[in-house]
Order: sequence, then C-alpha cells, then structure tokens
Amino acid sequence: MRFVNKENVSLLVDLYELTMADAYFREGKNGIAVFDLFARSLPKNRGFLVACGIYDALSYIEGLRFGKEEIAYLRESGKFSNGFLGYLENFRFSGEVSAVPEGTCVFEKEPLIRISAPLVQAQILESFLLNCVSFQTMIATKAARVCMAAKEKPVCDFGLRRAQGMDAGLKASRASYIGGCAGTSNVLAGKEYRIPIMGTVAHSFILAYESEMDAFRAIARNYGSGCVFLIDTYDTIRGAVNAVKVAREMEKEGKKLGAVRIDSGNLAKLSRKVRGIFDEEGLKYVKIIASGGLDEYEVEKLAWAIAPIDSFGVGTAMDVSADAPCLDMNYKLCEYEGKGRRKMSAGKTTLPGKKQIFRLEEGGAYVRDVIGMEGEGIGGRKLLVQMMREGRITWKIPGIEEIRKMCKEEIGKLPVEVRKIKNPSKYPVDLSEGLLAQV
Amino acid sequence: MRFVNKENVSLLVDLYELTMADAYFREGKNGIAVFDLFARSLPKNRGFLVACGIYDALSYIEGLRFGKEEIAYLRESGKFSNGFLGYLENFRFSGEVSAVPEGTCVFEKEPLIRISAPLVQAQILESFLLNCVSFQTMIATKAARVCMAAKEKPVCDFGLRRAQGMDAGLKASRASYIGGCAGTSNVLAGKEYRIPIMGTVAHSFILAYESEMDAFRAIARNYGSGCVFLIDTYDTIRGAVNAVKVAREMEKEGKKLGAVRIDSGNLAKLSRKVRGIFDEEGLKYVKIIASGGLDEYEVEKLAWAIAPIDSFGVGTAMDVSADAPCLDMNYKLCEYEGKGRRKMSAGKTTLPGKKQIFRLEEGGAYVRDVIGMEGEGIGGRKLLVQMMREGRITWKIPGIEEIRKMCKEEIGKLPVEVRKIKNPSKYPVDLSEGLLAQV
Repeated sequence: MRFVNKENVSLLVDLYELTMADAYFREGKNGIAVFDLFARSLPKNRGFLVACGIYDALSYIEGLRFGKEEIAYLRESGKFSNGFLGYLENFRFSGEVSAVPEGTCVFEKEPLIRISAPLVQAQILESFLLNCVSFQTMIATKAARVCMAAKEKPVCDFGLRRAQGMDAGLKASRASYIGGCAGTSNVLAGKEYRIPIMGTVAHSFILAYESEMDAFRAIARNYGSGCVFLIDTYDTIRGAVNAVKVAREMEKEGKKLGAVRIDSGNLAKLSRKVRGIFDEEGLKYVKIIASGGLDEYEVEKLAWAIAPIDSFGVGTAMDVSADAPCLDMNYKLCEYEGKGRRKMSAGKTTLPGKKQIFRLEEGGAYVRDVIGMEGEGIGGRKLLVQMMREGRITWKIPGIEEIRKMCKEEIGKLPVEVRKIKNPSKYPVDLSEGLLAQV
Repeated sequence: MRFVNKENVSLLVDLYELTMADAYFREGKNGIAVFDLFARSLPKNRGFLVACGIYDALSYIEGLRFGKEEIAYLRESGKFSNGFLGYLENFRFSGEVSAVPEGTCVFEKEPLIRISAPLVQAQILESFLLNCVSFQTMIATKAARVCMAAKEKPVCDFGLRRAQGMDAGLKASRASYIGGCAGTSNVLAGKEYRIPIMGTVAHSFILAYESEMDAFRAIARNYGSGCVFLIDTYDTIRGAVNAVKVAREMEKEGKKLGAVRIDSGNLAKLSRKVRGIFDEEGLKYVKIIASGGLDEYEVEKLAWAIAPIDSFGVGTAMDVSADAPCLDMNYKLCEYEGKGRRKMSAGKTTLPGKKQIFRLEEGGAYVRDVIGMEGEGIGGRKLLVQMMREGRITWKIPGIEEIRKMCKEEIGKLPVEVRKIKNPSKYPVDLSEGLLAQV
C-alpha cells in the first residue's frame, strides 16, 4: 500500500505543471506571476462556501522539496531538461501568499488564495492547491449546511468509512468539525487535530450476542452510564422495549442509559414511537440519536416534522459532499510581470490583476462584498491577508477551536436567505471600478 | 499538514470499532467470526462493479500494528481498559482472508472480501476496509464506464486536482488505469504504480506569453515533435488557425505537431470545425484531444455525434465518481462460532454464513452467478480465493498490467445489456439452495 508523505507529495502534481515549468525555466521566463485560486461558480443549493484547507496549503508551499528519489523518477521519465532537474534539487518557494483565514465564508469568483511568485514556482503549486483547498472547502461547507439544518442539535461526523480514501477520511473530520460538527467517530482525526471523538456500537455487536437483550446487557456492563443501545437490528419497536428493560436493570445498579440509536426506517415516525415508549416508562432522560442515510435535506425534514431526535450521526453524504462532490475551483494566472492577464474561453473568463476582497458590514451583518484591486480604498474588511512572505509562513495559524468559532460567527452574519439549504439567494458580490477598468 | 502513514493508519478507525473490540476483549468473547464486505445495492446506472482496493486492504491487514504514540492517545482518551491497550500493543492479525482478485466484476450482495478471524481482530478492520475498498472500487468502475463510452479511443485521467484529498488523488489514478484509462496526469501515481504519465499545457501557459502564437511557438520550441497546443484560451477557431501556422513552421524544421486540445465550448461542433481546418491544410496527422467537464455520458454523446475526437482527458467527474460518489458498501457479521448471523433491519437484511460466489460461463460469456455456501458443489469459477492465511498474505499479487488486462476481459464477458452506460439490465445473481436454507 502506498502512502503520500512529506517527501513524495512533491510529485503529487499533474505532469503538465512540471513540463510547463521546465519550458519557462529553459526560456528564462520567470517573472513575478500572480495566480488566484477561486471557485468559478457555487454548486447547486450553495449560498456560500466555508474556506478550508488553506493552512495545509501553506504548510505544503513552505515545505515543498524535491528529494533524490523523486528527481530520479523525473529523470528516468525522459521528459525533463537536466537544467530544470538541477533547479528542482534546490527548489524553495520564495514568493508571497495572501489568503482568507480558514472558516471565512466566500462566494463565487472570490480568490481564497493569491500567490505572487516567480512563474516557475507559482506554476508548480497548482495541482496540489486545487486538490487540497477544493476538497476541504467543499466538506466544511457541507458540514455547515448539515449543522444549520440540525438547528442547535449536535451532529457527529460518522463518515470515515465512506470518505474517498485515507486522507479524505482524516481531513473530512477536521473540515466537518470546523463547519460545526460536535465531534467525529474518526480516532486518528481526534489524535491529530485534538477534536472530540464519539461512538456507539455497530449492528455486528448486537448480532454477536445470542439475543438483543444479551447484547444490551453487555453494552451496559462494559460501557456503563451514558452508554448507547442500537435498537434497530431486528425490529426498532421491540428494540426499544428491550432497551427499556435493560435501562431499568441499569437503574437498579445506579447507572443510567444515555441514549438509543435508530439507524434505519422512517426516522420521524420511529423516533416518535420510541420517545413515547421511553416517556411512558419514566425514562425521559434517555436520548435518541438518529443516523443512516442522513444529509442536510433529510435532517431539515426531520426538523420540520418535529421529530424528537436529540442528535444526529451523519456520514456518507457529508464526507463526500454527495450532492456536490467536487467544486469548480480554479487556479488562474491573473498577472504577469505587473500586467493583467485574462482567459476568454467560452464560459470560463477570469478576472485580471492583483485583487482584494472587501467585505462590507452593517449593524453586525454582512451586506455585500466588492472584488477590487489590492490598492483600492474601498473600505470594509479586507479578506485576503498576507500569510507568507519570502517563502516563510508569517501568519499565526489559529487553533481549531478558534477556526470553528470564527466559522460559526461568519455564517451567523450572512443574510438569512443566503443561508438557506435549498435555493438560497445570491449574496451580492460586486466588481470595483478599478477592476472593471481592467476587464 | 497531517499525513496518514504506516504507523498512524492503525487509528484511522471509527471509535466504536475499538470500544466494541475492548468490550469483546474484556468479556473473552473472541470466537471465530466471519465478516463479509459487499455492496448492498449498485448505484444508479451501474450494471456491475470492478473490484479494486483489495490488495491495499490485504497489505493493511497484514501490517496492522499499534505504535507507542497511538496507544498513548487511546490511553489518554480514557475510553479503554488497560488490558485491551496491552492487547493492542502486541496486536497481530492471525485470521484468514478470502477475496475476489482486483479487476473482477462483481454485483450486489456479492462479498468482495470475506474475513474469518477472532472477533476482536475482525471487528477492528471494518472502517479501513470499507474506506479503502468502496472508494477504489467506485473509481475503477467509473473509469471502466468512461472507457466503454469512449469505445477504443484512449482516455487519460486528469482528475488529481479534483480528487478528494491526497490519497484519493493517488489511488484514483491507479483505479482508473485498472478500469481502462491509458494513463494519468498524476506524476506520483506514475512513480508509485509504474503507469504511463501524460500531459499537455494549461491555459496559464498560453496567457503567460504576449500572444497565442508566441505561446504555441514556445511549446513547439520546448516540447518538439508530438507536442500539443491548447487552442481554446481566447477563441477556439482562431486558435486552430494559429495552430496551423505554427504547425507549418514546425514542418519546416522537420517537426510535427502532435495534437490540439479543446477544453471548453461545444466539443462536437468545435472538433468538427477544427478537424476541417486541419484537413483542408493537409494536416491530417494532427490529432484532437477533448477535455473539460467530460464524463461517460458526455463521452457517449460525443461518440454518437461521431465527433472527430481522437482521445479524451477526463478528470473531475471520474476521480470523484460524481454521479455516485459513494457506494453502499457494508461489512457485516455473517457467522459467529460456526453459527450464521443475520441482520433484519428494515431494508438492510444480510445473508448469513460462510459464502462463496460461483460464476457460470457459457461459450466465453458470463451467464449468471450463484451466491452459495463455501462447501457447495455448484460448479463454475469460485470468485473468492484465499489470499491470506494465519495473518500472512499467501496470494501472489499480480502486476498492474495484469490486473488491467483481467478487468478488460471480465467486462468483455459480461452480457452487453449489463454493460450499458444508462439503465443497464441486472445481471442474474441467484442464491443457492444451501444459502436459502439458512435464510
């Protein structure tokens, strides 16, 4: 099995970035280039994006080196000049990076990252930046949507098993925590990012015992107070009745059942019936966790149906952002040697020049953004802040709790219609006079 | 930036797998369990799946160890017994694994992997196996569909930038090569898996020069014969006219332009116009590469429109399997201590017992599968073969070219209606008498 690591990540790049860089290198075409990383359009039903993956991108840029083994492979491919391979041996990024802090809400055409560096260097970064930032932004956005749909009820990320590979499994947990999840089932994410880890039991646990009652008793015995019974392995209602019996046994031992989880069937109906059964038995303290095929649309339906669900486990659809599994994100040259550049391909035009995003606020709420030129005096908050100078990170990267808090505040400041799960309104983003003069 | 590596991958697991394992451990409940990994149903428009990710799974199982740092984190979480943590320190998988070889076509409910091991061990594997096999199988399947749609024309994987994270970027290239792609733009995949790497140039290259002609000349100068001009940066038709001029200049120097790439607009119309321009100028040898928003449905439309496209670059939709970004794959206990186990949850029933898949062939074509009990004498080819015994891989893992070839043969043996891109017929999969007797 192959892992991507600090060394070989330098080759996690589309071939053409390196062959283009080689051509630039040979031609001595290495003036300062400005590239923007931005989403050309937002996916269906998205009124905003939550920027994420920015700090991994910074770390990648600062640490990018081409090792011996990697250079040897490039040489062996026969596609590169010796001069360029020598250049790669000593590669260090020396440019400037400005970006929006993670957790910031952004909209279409707004640069999340702006690179200003010698052309050869800036070119080489493209594939990784797109891969890293599109994915994490997409997941943070999706999680924010699920959490909005759940109102104030906690959502736990259960998606590791459905994530697209190992890295997605790890990073999606971080992104979904930033987007508002209360924790993750993913132990590695807990360790690496210091986020809360959570879990219940699987159906296999219930099946491994002779009867459901035996399994519930084993859970009570091993996990103690606060434990969770999974009640839908055979029949949810009978499962609830069995859970009541074992909850009573627990009470006799001074322990309290924490919750039951329902993972299949009509969750609105079942949760109401199960709630009824527990309430009648005086077990109002037992909470109900719902999971199984949930996404923001299903969670919102359950909220509308006033289903007595206390928290949600959401995985599959969230960790792959199932209704929008990729973002139309781009990394485009917008200036070369101080001169604006602009692509005109059908439906794919870009904005030239070294830009800035100005966010205008009124009475604690965001009212509009203006994309303008870096130097323009437009007012409002400048979203792009310098995070790297001469190839070194100069930005104090905040802790994950701080990023998560900022994300919540950002979303809270958006117009309500922009926050809608379905058919949100478009947030107003204008182009400045300075920018329009260049277009 | 965090990487998943050989050491910390042991924690890439849902918390409940470990807490369940702890409970089993404490209760001495560690009899031989049989788990099946299978897709409950096939995604929309899928008539079959191409098994992939199996060999990574084997490698994971054989190498699974819990290191000091990982154990320390688990201890610190306060969720585990000391006895269990001691057990993990010396963890070695000791069970048996049977699986279908990578490249095999499989259908719903058919186990791709069957684990037979002490319960505690088998439980711990769940999250990783699902993550690994679902994703790679999904991508190999998607790529096979794109390649079928392209008929015999080469398809190159351009999807690294859209893949969901680093590992997906790496593994999707391998899976898509197995599924039939001719190569990948992903340099790391080229190095790690020894698959062909391919590339052209990006729009930024064209934009970095004063004019399109200058850029084309730079490509000709730097890449020589066989090079590719990207002609849609400003206007595709004018791009083609400029390409003709530079192709003529190349001819004078004894070089030949390889191809032009069109990455936007109406690819069928544009490719016909561009073909016309080149043919009129006697440049019939210049090929046309199409890319930009392609998937199997678009490629099939282009094939129907008899667009004069020679090869396709497909990325975004393929590398995330956009129309089906996750598989409904499951890992379910089907036997414990020799006794069949069966989940009955609504819409989620499972098949009990230690099973085998029997594939029946007539005249070189597959006619039906039977899922039966391991010992049954049903005939046909047994798809599940033993790959690991007593925790050691015993299967000679084939080279990637062999896997790719096998995949092509497998797909070729499927009924034509099952291979359809849209609304395929269901391949007949029956349950044996022996299995039905257990249900």
